[in-house]
Amino acid sequence: MSNQWSKKQEAWSARFNEPMSELVKRYTASVFFDKRLAQFDIQGSLAHATMLAEAKVISPQDLASIERGMAQIRQEMADGEFQWQLDLEDVHLNIERRLTEIVGDAGKRLHTGRSRNDQVATDIRLFLRHEVDRIQGLLRTMIKSLVDVADRHVDTVMPGFTHLQVAQPVTFGHHLLAYAEMFERDLERMQDCRKRINRLPLGAAALAGTTFPINRHRTAQLLGFDEPTRNSLDSVSDRDFAIEFCAAASLLMMHVSRLSEELILWMSPRFGFIDLPDRFCTGSSIMPQKKNPDVPELARGKTGRVYGHLSGLLTLMKGQPLAYNKDNQEDKEPLFDTVDTVVDTLTIFAEMIDGVRVKPDNMRRATLEGYATATDLADALVKKGMPFRDAHEAVARAVRYCDEHGLGLEQLTVEQLQEALHLGELGYGDELVNPELLGVLTLEGSLKARNHIGGTAPEQVKQAVAATRLRLKL
Amino acid sequence: MSNQWSKKQEAWSARFNEPMSELVKRYTASVFFDKRLAQFDIQGSLAHATMLAEAKVISPQDLASIERGMAQIRQEMADGEFQWQLDLEDVHLNIERRLTEIVGDAGKRLHTGRSRNDQVATDIRLFLRHEVDRIQGLLRTMIKSLVDVADRHVDTVMPGFTHLQVAQPVTFGHHLLAYAEMFERDLERMQDCRKRINRLPLGAAALAGTTFPINRHRTAQLLGFDEPTRNSLDSVSDRDFAIEFCAAASLLMMHVSRLSEELILWMSPRFGFIDLPDRFCTGSSIMPQKKNPDVPELARGKTGRVYGHLSGLLTLMKGQPLAYNKDNQEDKEPLFDTVDTVVDTLTIFAEMIDGVRVKPDNMRRATLEGYATATDLADALVKKGMPFRDAHEAVARAVRYCDEHGLGLEQLTVEQLQEALHLGELGYGDELVNPELLGVLTLEGSLKARNHIGGTAPEQVKQAVAATRLRLKL
Amino acid sequence: MSNQWSKKQEAWSARFNEPMSELVKRYTASVFFDKRLAQFDIQGSLAHATMLAEAKVISPQDLASIERGMAQIRQEMADGEFQWQLDLEDVHLNIERRLTEIVGDAGKRLHTGRSRNDQVATDIRLFLRHEVDRIQGLLRTMIKSLVDVADRHVDTVMPGFTHLQVAQPVTFGHHLLAYAEMFERDLERMQDCRKRINRLPLGAAALAGTTFPINRHRTAQLLGFDEPTRNSLDSVSDRDFAIEFCAAASLLMMHVSRLSEELILWMSPRFGFIDLPDRFCTGSSIMPQKKNPDVPELARGKTGRVYGHLSGLLTLMKGQPLAYNKDNQEDKEPLFDTVDTVVDTLTIFAEMIDGVRVKPDNMRRATLEGYATATDLADALVKKGMPFRDAHEAVARAVRYCDEHGLGLEQLTVEQLQEALHLGELGYGDELVNPELLGVLTLEGSLKARNHIGGTAPEQVKQAVAATRLRLKL
Amino acid sequence: MSNQWSKKQEAWSARFNEPMSELVKRYTASVFFDKRLAQFDIQGSLAHATMLAEAKVISPQDLASIERGMAQIRQEMADGEFQWQLDLEDVHLNIERRLTEIVGDAGKRLHTGRSRNDQVATDIRLFLRHEVDRIQGLLRTMIKSLVDVADRHVDTVMPGFTHLQVAQPVTFGHHLLAYAEMFERDLERMQDCRKRINRLPLGAAALAGTTFPINRHRTAQLLGFDEPTRNSLDSVSDRDFAIEFCAAASLLMMHVSRLSEELILWMSPRFGFIDLPDRFCTGSSIMPQKKNPDVPELARGKTGRVYGHLSGLLTLMKGQPLAYNKDNQEDKEPLFDTVDTVVDTLTIFAEMIDGVRVKPDNMRRATLEGYATATDLADALVKKGMPFRDAHEAVARAVRYCDEHGLGLEQLTVEQLQEALHLGELGYGDELVNPELLGVLTLEGSLKARNHIGGTAPEQVKQAVAATRLRLKL
Repeated sequence: MSNQWSKKQEAWSARFNEPMSELVKRYTASVFFDKRLAQFDIQGSLAHATMLAEAKVISPQDLASIERGMAQIRQEMADGEFQWQLDLEDVHLNIERRLTEIVGDAGKRLHTGRSRNDQVATDIRLFLRHEVDRIQGLLRTMIKSLVDVADRHVDTVMPGFTHLQVAQPVTFGHHLLAYAEMFERDLERMQDCRKRINRLPLGAAALAGTTFPINRHRTAQLLGFDEPTRNSLDSVSDRDFAIEFCAAASLLMMHVSRLSEELILWMSPRFGFIDLPDRFCTGSSIMPQKKNPDVPELARGKTGRVYGHLSGLLTLMKGQPLAYNKDNQEDKEPLFDTVDTVVDTLTIFAEMIDGVRVKPDNMRRATLEGYATATDLADALVKKGMPFRDAHEAVARAVRYCDEHGLGLEQLTVEQLQEALHLGELGYGDELVNPELLGVLTLEGSLKARNHIGGTAPEQVKQAVAATRLRLKL
Repeated sequence: MSNQWSKKQEAWSARFNEPMSELVKRYTASVFFDKRLAQFDIQGSLAHATMLAEAKVISPQDLASIERGMAQIRQEMADGEFQWQLDLEDVHLNIERRLTEIVGDAGKRLHTGRSRNDQVATDIRLFLRHEVDRIQGLLRTMIKSLVDVADRHVDTVMPGFTHLQVAQPVTFGHHLLAYAEMFERDLERMQDCRKRINRLPLGAAALAGTTFPINRHRTAQLLGFDEPTRNSLDSVSDRDFAIEFCAAASLLMMHVSRLSEELILWMSPRFGFIDLPDRFCTGSSIMPQKKNPDVPELARGKTGRVYGHLSGLLTLMKGQPLAYNKDNQEDKEPLFDTVDTVVDTLTIFAEMIDGVRVKPDNMRRATLEGYATATDLADALVKKGMPFRDAHEAVARAVRYCDEHGLGLEQLTVEQLQEALHLGELGYGDELVNPELLGVLTLEGSLKARNHIGGTAPEQVKQAVAATRLRLKL
Repeated sequence: MSNQWSKKQEAWSARFNEPMSELVKRYTASVFFDKRLAQFDIQGSLAHATMLAEAKVISPQDLASIERGMAQIRQEMADGEFQWQLDLEDVHLNIERRLTEIVGDAGKRLHTGRSRNDQVATDIRLFLRHEVDRIQGLLRTMIKSLVDVADRHVDTVMPGFTHLQVAQPVTFGHHLLAYAEMFERDLERMQDCRKRINRLPLGAAALAGTTFPINRHRTAQLLGFDEPTRNSLDSVSDRDFAIEFCAAASLLMMHVSRLSEELILWMSPRFGFIDLPDRFCTGSSIMPQKKNPDVPELARGKTGRVYGHLSGLLTLMKGQPLAYNKDNQEDKEPLFDTVDTVVDTLTIFAEMIDGVRVKPDNMRRATLEGYATATDLADALVKKGMPFRDAHEAVARAVRYCDEHGLGLEQLTVEQLQEALHLGELGYGDELVNPELLGVLTLEGSLKARNHIGGTAPEQVKQAVAATRLRLKL
Repeated sequence: MSNQWSKKQEAWSARFNEPMSELVKRYTASVFFDKRLAQFDIQGSLAHATMLAEAKVISPQDLASIERGMAQIRQEMADGEFQWQLDLEDVHLNIERRLTEIVGDAGKRLHTGRSRNDQVATDIRLFLRHEVDRIQGLLRTMIKSLVDVADRHVDTVMPGFTHLQVAQPVTFGHHLLAYAEMFERDLERMQDCRKRINRLPLGAAALAGTTFPINRHRTAQLLGFDEPTRNSLDSVSDRDFAIEFCAAASLLMMHVSRLSEELILWMSPRFGFIDLPDRFCTGSSIMPQKKNPDVPELARGKTGRVYGHLSGLLTLMKGQPLAYNKDNQEDKEPLFDTVDTVVDTLTIFAEMIDGVRVKPDNMRRATLEGYATATDLADALVKKGMPFRDAHEAVARAVRYCDEHGLGLEQLTVEQLQEALHLGELGYGDELVNPELLGVLTLEGSLKARNHIGGTAPEQVKQAVAATRLRLKL
């Protein structure tokens, strides 16, 4: 007895006069990459079959046969014995064909009331939901690493940079917590994105719904979806969720690239702020002395890869008329690669951050070279009544004085500081400068003074560590 | 008396030996585009000053002066009399300088406990929150237009396409509701994005917080922010919210581009499904007969513009070390242009959709040319016990038969259909085909049968219209 | 006896305290994708060794050993017996290690005077030069297909569209030649790009050159490069050529996407201008009547993929300090995938274009529905002395008249045309319209009249076909 | 007397029933940005009119009138008195309308045999050719600055980095010449791109050519184009040249971003390799001590902007059917902004590079901290017969020894070096190490030894400077 698949080698269906050319088969087949969806495809098919049986579209016997066949297919896959065939184009037809080989007509009934268009949309959503959950777990681990290291360095002073110039003293813990904040926003975005992933397109069939009495709420329930989608044309053509995920992944990788840039800088001998464990570094084939921070460099590079996938997917969907077009098949490879890049990168970073060896002496030395407490001096003058803009100008003069005399601000005497500020020229008296004023020029004094929510005072950093742990249950 | 700004023409501060070159001034100045933030800058400054006064950092008299000065500046702007100066770089210094001219020392005190770094971050968030709210309103109007037209066409039959080949009959109302779904997801994303916009960075100062006893919760409250941000280094360097907005805007424009593609197709004489009102079209400088759908074409083109801004902003932030770097100034122009493009496009589309003239006869005629009910025939055979895969094969043969005989499926007699299906070859008897079976081959029969949530049955479309109106309170 | 590679499992070199973690190995290894460069790596190594021997840096015996070892390795690869090891990171170390196993110390001398940094840059250039040559061949085949089909349709009339509205009659041959022009520009760009690929970086060593007396001109000669690169730091970090190639590939795919869009439109029943051979189409899993133009749809989709790679590579290189950074390893996968996508797409398109079945009757019918000769009428009035702007206005009125009377321009009588043009209102006499004037309103008359270089007159199309064949020696 | 433009306020042409809505006018008008093309539009029109007169399509009197009118329009523009009207959509209609006001019917005859489609394509090509020539000049100035500074520092030693770890000594001159190479490639690409810009589309008319006896070679000659384009459909829809330019500009900005990254690093106190002149820096509104490298930071940021425009333009053209669609109007703003960004950035960088203050002492000190001559030691052992891989391993041990003893390689005695290399373990005798060997460990010795084309030896750098000057006639 002939049927659609058994003659596939000859022609797509009776509608066709010649078989697909070999070149076209390879060009259009997706089975080499979409077989990754196999478990989700089976999961979706089983839910669909259960619903069909409950709706009496197929018989209980058919359902039992399908369940038995699928169990065998799962086993064959686990044993590496499943035969994937290019001729069968994709993961869906490969599994359906094998099912039909095993269980006969029941297998041919599985596709009742659905199409590959809604089937593949369901598979990708099941896949991506799974991966988003995994990524959320990894983000939490990553944040935990950052918070743990920050906790050990709530008062380790380092130079805070703007424009890569020394700006003000901050603590290393405070600095790391900035990244914890970024990754927590990534967590929020993944959660928001998940809401839009977790809707069931199955039942949209090819594009218009089906004539069978399906129960989409039941299928949604069986598969853990929040609800069925609301419009069949939209359901089969919607790839927003994949793009939204790639946009969230791009932001995530952007954060990784910033952290990487800093790790690379900090490990450069010019900074010497940290050392990465040897197991995260490689050497050179020619230069025997080299120890290179390959992991952060590669991660910084992989940012481009993920951005590229986002850009590619947006282009893919631009200007497509409804409903499904074959263009959409191109959604999978960039999505898979984005998932893998994010998962691998977070896994390795969480471990690497935890192993960073900090060099507090170098950090402190660097903080002292750059007049990091100039703003504190200006603030102190303001507290004595000078308007901020005048104080800013006076301190700029003092910095120039230090520059010319090769001194740090904290090394000035009261007399020198009076001279350096040129208070008279600005219309103020020298009495503004007294010994207490010098106290604000120490690194610890500067840090401690920034004692408000979000500030770098060790007290605040400690609270931020605790609050983050509490908020995320780390 | 000299101060920082009064000597700006000579040098940035006492720290500098020469003034900025004219070329550099133009290259680095942002005042030509960031003056758009003026109202938000003033709003932020007033809240900051109120908080400073409440915290006794400045006196009540200073606050009153600042409020008076800002009121005057607002008036000058409203009257077009405010003098913007390139020498003062940006919107912030222009306003602060003018304030100091008007109110003297109180103006110089305004910048106490803040920096331009947290100030500009606050301004952009205030701006973007305002625009996101506006865009949400426009999205609702857009959805309302779609729903209104859909309501008038719940049962207007048109060909549903996949691969731009006729697939199955759908209704025009159902088709439009697919877009309503897309724009509703955009609405969700804008709402999610707004959460991350609506956090107050002010108080982060340059990067590390400030030594003044500020109350960030109070400032947040005064400005309607949900909460202050949690880390000062992150606060001044975070542009996630702008990128997330541009990603949401890219998806939105992608939806617009798809709708535009369809409007252009439908208005082409080859389709002839709709006419756009003349006021949305232009002619040709050389071809007197032309009436071109310029608006959807331009919107389709503007999609690239918004994608480009997203891509540019992601690149901008890649690999930047903490905290603020001047690169970040480049965030504004793409953000502004994205906002304007989205706002203008939604405004014009909402109006245009409402004016679309539908040509039901052409739609119906097109639906009849393409065997749109072939799936219904297969489904009917399934209901008579044939497994779906066999039914698919039989109907493919029938379609081939029609092709060869120049007939539509709905034109076949019982005998012809029996012959066309080649049932015997597939192992079935001719009794499967009877007169009732022919009934499923009508367009109305096909539509009506897809009667489940998300399906194209007019009954379902009507419910979807009502549900959307209820859900969005349209 | 120990050496660098034999202890690789333990640590990178004596400089390292611990081996690379397994996770890091997988994250940083490139051997899974860069083994594709093996033949080019061997080719480069043999040229390097030959030059070293000529410069007496290694002995003739060493060279002979290296040549023998490499021959064996090539054989092992051809036989599928070469053992690729993840532990050895990349294609270069895998081959060098195996060489040393086979020939001993001579193998350890191969890396004298070079580094992986210049070695990999050389490999990629050899690879890409090879592929660019292949792509140029494919572009010529593609152009030949277009020209051959155009030749068969120099006078097949079809509607020329602007804004997807009927504009003026053109011939199908003329239309296809527009694409031949695009692909010829792609050919030019590939040729220009090749100039910048074909420069030898070998000899730059790690970044600064080498202390051995190398002869870079000799190595360039041996490998067919036009010249050595001129600066060692630039040589190891330059990836311009890969990005320039991807930009050229993006334009090429953009052209493919435009052609695809048209093939899809033309094959839609609404147009019905062409049929694609069945072997380039697929059916539907649910709709038995479907025959879908999968190949052009997929190609249109793959455009996004190539754009994405370009975007990713540009991001990759942004802001990298000199010289080599590990980020650069991320150049290969996007480059390889771009090459493969372009090669596969051109191969399949050249064959598909050749098999397109044209439906001239449908094309002609469509040309008659849209006042395609309105411009000809205006031109004819101009030739009788009316300024073009007045003629444009008069004809617009005539089109409106036809619209209201349901007539085509070519169906009007002299009297009707006189009335329709409203000549009196514009200040002209009815004598402008005479029977000859009606002649310009035929499709053939319109075509024939555009008889200048680049015009659509069949005579011109014939010449363009011949000229293209001559120019490209097709 | 009425004509097409005089009634534009009422409707586009007699074909239209209502005027364009105000909203649509603003959405679709391009005059606000394309008026920048005015001079090129006039230049093109004058050449077109000259050709028309020579071909006797218009009279000599008409040509004289048009020339007189255009001269007056140019004067009005120079005087700022030309009235741009939104109602007239674009630069072309604004000028044509004004011309007709001035010279009457001759003005209405100007548009004979052309369309806005080929007109705008001509204008953009004229514009871009002009700008590409300007950019080539700026690139030469930029290269000259780099070469001049390099010339002053052919032997200024600095650490060559890979992975931002000290690799080998290089000279500052050598380092700057790497950028000269990059910008010279940009020059080549601009030149290649110019070839494809410099072809004349005029004569393609709307899409199919014209019925008038035009002479396209003559118009090309008058406008300095190399040749007319070869296919009318391609001519009006081709925007390859704009995209190719943006791709070349993206690579150029990528180079700027790399140089910027290094300038920022070098000016950071952690490096302290250079100082930028004060006139290229700005201060902070809050931190009185700051001097920030704003210009390179902003340039690094602007890279994203240009990448974004490239990405946007590629998206714009994706999937557009032939011939002209309104989407194409969106090509101008990204193109203009790309041109402006490149021009401004090159202008300012050429001047800034020339003003860089180099700090050779800091560079030298940094070179000594990182075992920069380790490769030289390995090379020296190779020259004594040790295979490279063994030498690499021995030196790695020596570096470890130095690390543990806090010594630089150049500080070791013969005995210490013998011990450090562990020669015996590798099967070699201590006699390999003698006093001369220590000589290779000096920075100057290392530099001098890399004396081949492309190497960092001062002798080579000097030659490279001279060769570049000669090649580019700087």
